[in-house]
Amino acid sequence: MPTDDNNFKSFPCHGYAVHSATSPLVPYNFERRALNPKDVLISIEYCGVCHSDIHQAHNDWSCGRYPMVPGHEIVGLVKAVGEQVTKFAVGERVGVGCMVDSCRACDNCLAEEEQFCLKHMVMTYNDVEMDLKTPTYGGYSDCIVVDEHFVLRMPENLDPASAAPLLCAGITTYSPLRHWGVGPGYQLAIVGLGGLGHVGVKIARSMGAEVTVLSTSPEKASDAEMFGAHHFVDTGDPLALPKLHDCFDVIINTMPVNFNLDLYLNLLKADGALISVGMPAQIFSFNPFSLQMKRRSLCGSFMGGIAETQEMLDYCGEHNITAEVELIHPDDINQAWENIIAKKARYRYVIDCHKIGEQR
Amino acid sequence: MPTDDNNFKSFPCHGYAVHSATSPLVPYNFERRALNPKDVLISIEYCGVCHSDIHQAHNDWSCGRYPMVPGHEIVGLVKAVGEQVTKFAVGERVGVGCMVDSCRACDNCLAEEEQFCLKHMVMTYNDVEMDLKTPTYGGYSDCIVVDEHFVLRMPENLDPASAAPLLCAGITTYSPLRHWGVGPGYQLAIVGLGGLGHVGVKIARSMGAEVTVLSTSPEKASDAEMFGAHHFVDTGDPLALPKLHDCFDVIINTMPVNFNLDLYLNLLKADGALISVGMPAQIFSFNPFSLQMKRRSLCGSFMGGIAETQEMLDYCGEHNITAEVELIHPDDINQAWENIIAKKARYRYVIDCHKIGEQR
Repeated sequence: MPTDDNNFKSFPCHGYAVHSATSPLVPYNFERRALNPKDVLISIEYCGVCHSDIHQAHNDWSCGRYPMVPGHEIVGLVKAVGEQVTKFAVGERVGVGCMVDSCRACDNCLAEEEQFCLKHMVMTYNDVEMDLKTPTYGGYSDCIVVDEHFVLRMPENLDPASAAPLLCAGITTYSPLRHWGVGPGYQLAIVGLGGLGHVGVKIARSMGAEVTVLSTSPEKASDAEMFGAHHFVDTGDPLALPKLHDCFDVIINTMPVNFNLDLYLNLLKADGALISVGMPAQIFSFNPFSLQMKRRSLCGSFMGGIAETQEMLDYCGEHNITAEVELIHPDDINQAWENIIAKKARYRYVIDCHKIGEQR
Repeated sequence: MPTDDNNFKSFPCHGYAVHSATSPLVPYNFERRALNPKDVLISIEYCGVCHSDIHQAHNDWSCGRYPMVPGHEIVGLVKAVGEQVTKFAVGERVGVGCMVDSCRACDNCLAEEEQFCLKHMVMTYNDVEMDLKTPTYGGYSDCIVVDEHFVLRMPENLDPASAAPLLCAGITTYSPLRHWGVGPGYQLAIVGLGGLGHVGVKIARSMGAEVTVLSTSPEKASDAEMFGAHHFVDTGDPLALPKLHDCFDVIINTMPVNFNLDLYLNLLKADGALISVGMPAQIFSFNPFSLQMKRRSLCGSFMGGIAETQEMLDYCGEHNITAEVELIHPDDINQAWENIIAKKARYRYVIDCHKIGEQR
């Protein structure tokens, strides 16, 4: 239970921030807001490192706000709750994903698709609160204050460090798989076997689809099989993709870079959908004939609503699905970012936030 | 009934052809094949002029075969039938659309989506038959021989000249409206009020959608209303489209040219679909964020299957829907093409094929 103090005083927070698009992460101390009646104070245990953290920090999407404390794959323990909080109690293990608020009144919020809020979906970091001025700071830190609506319950059976990436990589792949009805009888391809892709393979396999991984990294073939993929295709082989024309019902593209869209569109059957979930900073081009000649769709999916995120976490708990993670000390995040850019991550770095502020 | 003769002899045909990508249409005499057992000989009464005829003749899609006799909005009377024909009898009024054959054995053909045949969908002109060598010639001519499977029954209550454009413009707009479930409660926009767009407006209105026309031609506003549109937006007004963000469930794009995709994608609600049915020869570009931030889809639709084309014709018969046409003498097709390119058509030129070979 909150003390009276919790309702009035803000909380000191130790984290890591970038101060410009070209500077490295450095320790950064700031304050989390005093608890509003519906707020939850979370002591952060683990935070996953998402490729989009690097895009944001480097201002690839031209919306960088500095200082920026990245991180939106947050798992921790409830430390205190506001007086009207009903969903959580002190001591519970909870998660926070990519968003921490929205208007909650527009058609999309009322449809439980807060990620599409028509007014303002508040991202966990590099954004401003609903007041349009208070900056948000993410999970590369030791605590966070979030309205209970945007706090998720973590399944007890999952290792919390390995479950942290579900808050972004999990929902980002689960949501389109559910939305496009992927299940038994579906031929599914996942492009890219990275942080998103490897979780997507596990979830898609558990849903009953026949899963093919299309990857530029042939050395990942055995991992793909281990994660549940039925087939692995090395896209570096110029003969490989043309053999797969008209093969897939759904392709989930996790690559955060531009690529030859027409080549991949032509792998879809009639009425197939190519769904991008990576967040490239480039403009895409395609020949409209690639869509029209088979009534194909080119789609984008972006996270999922809060209710669907809880559904995904519960589903992953039931199916024992987590990410493959490498736990890192907070001082090693800059090196981890370099490794991610160099495609060396296997498969998700997770920051051990217990160690923030600790001497090595 | 066929005479013995019909089964063996080919039929002299008088038409109009282009002999290269840069030459005009000129009279051209050729032969239609002798009747196979399932073939129907049609005496062509009317043939609509589609913008794609011009793209094909000018080799905009880099697949021009010459001499080329365009035309795939064909209405005529059955003159003779092969010995195994069961669907049609001599004297019936029939139609032929954009395709005249397919493999009829692949998954898509078996699903009655012959337009997506995995082996070879034979276009009515500028293509080769299933033997991959015999050229096909279209409806800018006085007769045609087509397998009965690809021949449609024309509703008796519709004026045959005005109904001819339904064979392409009708099915091209009807099919996506049906496929995407457009009906009451749907906010639908149609981009472009030309040959396709004006038929699309009539069909969409009859299906119960709230219809908005987005057009570069403000002088067409009253016509749009006459065809059934609830709203008309002049897209030349730079302030008009930004006001319509997140407004539409479905946008049907009939423009046969490239355009600012992001501007139009942002008019869609979450889960909305922008469906292109025009056939531009250019490469399209877009920012993937326009799709992802609202889980929008960019889609293409291409004609419809034969069963669906018959369904569309019957539907248009019930709802008394035809195109707005201007009947032209065959000698005036070159001028009609120039008018179409100059956006002067109101709204579909239809060739009076009775007059082929006739002195003016």
